[in-house]
Amino acid sequence: MELYFSPLACSMSARIALYEAGVDATFTYVETRTKTLGDGSDFLGINGMGQVPVLRTDNGDLIAENPVVLQYIADAYPGSGLAPHGGLERVRLQQWLNFITSELHKLVFISLLDAKAPQGAKDYARAKAGPILDYLNAQLQGREFLLDRFTVADAYLVTVLNWAAPCGIDLAQWPNIQAYHAGLRARPSVARAMAEEFALYQEQDKRRKAA
Amino acid sequence: MELYFSPLACSMSARIALYEAGVDATFTYVETRTKTLGDGSDFLGINGMGQVPVLRTDNGDLIAENPVVLQYIADAYPGSGLAPHGGLERVRLQQWLNFITSELHKLVFISLLDAKAPQGAKDYARAKAGPILDYLNAQLQGREFLLDRFTVADAYLVTVLNWAAPCGIDLAQWPNIQAYHAGLRARPSVARAMAEEFALYQEQDKRRKAA
Repeated sequence: MELYFSPLACSMSARIALYEAGVDATFTYVETRTKTLGDGSDFLGINGMGQVPVLRTDNGDLIAENPVVLQYIADAYPGSGLAPHGGLERVRLQQWLNFITSELHKLVFISLLDAKAPQGAKDYARAKAGPILDYLNAQLQGREFLLDRFTVADAYLVTVLNWAAPCGIDLAQWPNIQAYHAGLRARPSVARAMAEEFALYQEQDKRRKAA
Repeated sequence: MELYFSPLACSMSARIALYEAGVDATFTYVETRTKTLGDGSDFLGINGMGQVPVLRTDNGDLIAENPVVLQYIADAYPGSGLAPHGGLERVRLQQWLNFITSELHKLVFISLLDAKAPQGAKDYARAKAGPILDYLNAQLQGREFLLDRFTVADAYLVTVLNWAAPCGIDLAQWPNIQAYHAGLRARPSVARAMAEEFALYQEQDKRRKAA
């Protein structure tokens, strides 16, 4: 498998899933500002939306949209336990993936992470964040994971929660979320992915400043 | 099955799916402003996020998040053809559902539909809409449906595209989307759902103005 990624973007959750599953994958850097790969070649031909992650499967198929990529990895390695195989537990996994992708990732964080977003958009996102994080905090009461064990939904959520502090959202207001986030950051697959992608992010930052 | 809905909200796509599958379902109105049912009872106990749709299955389980509700209906009635049963086509369905829920529904339309959203949030959503609809327009070239036949992704997309005109987005700028939208609106399940929910929306509007 080949994962097209941008450091510390939501694609980091797919890296975590691949580490959890023990997959020997290729990680291909995408410069999302110019929509090019590291060698300068075009990324829009791989994903017309210009977004990461994209997964190139061992069959050569290209899969986009993070919750779909995550479930594909989990299903390709069923022994990983990264997703329930069916039934109501799979439904619950999909509910969490959709909550994270729609409420948190898109509604709250897209404008907060965007230096060019107008102040009104950021104010709106911050106002939306309150009730969404209140709900999540209540759901995480007494829980280490979203379901009964670590799944791809946790990989996605820890990645998105990493964006809170840089966006000026202090998770200390939501103690269950803060404890959940701290616990997951100590998990070896997460700690490894974060350390590696933080270094790649710093290199990208230098390149962007030099450009 | 019982569907908790709000007229002309994204829950209309679940109604369309139920009509397509020929299910004799119960439709329960939710006043999303007060998070109550028609009899005044609490809806937050059914969905802590206060959002529609929620599906109560024949087993009594409650399912939230529209893409998950839609896939549940499709899988419960496999003869409906509302979702590919597996493989790469199911992956493609899930990609479209995630695109609609995250890019269109949450990023573009939440603030545009919200009378209280600041102008900056609406400007930001409108700017985001351009490239997203450009991408969708290119994908719909020569296509009647998102996949090779009508699926729950079409039910969701037609419902979301209905919001464009009231939000001041003229789909004539994207001729493939406009043609797709017109074609789907003429489909009997869609036309029936729209007519019924438009009447319910007008009744709700009267109640809200009287309150």
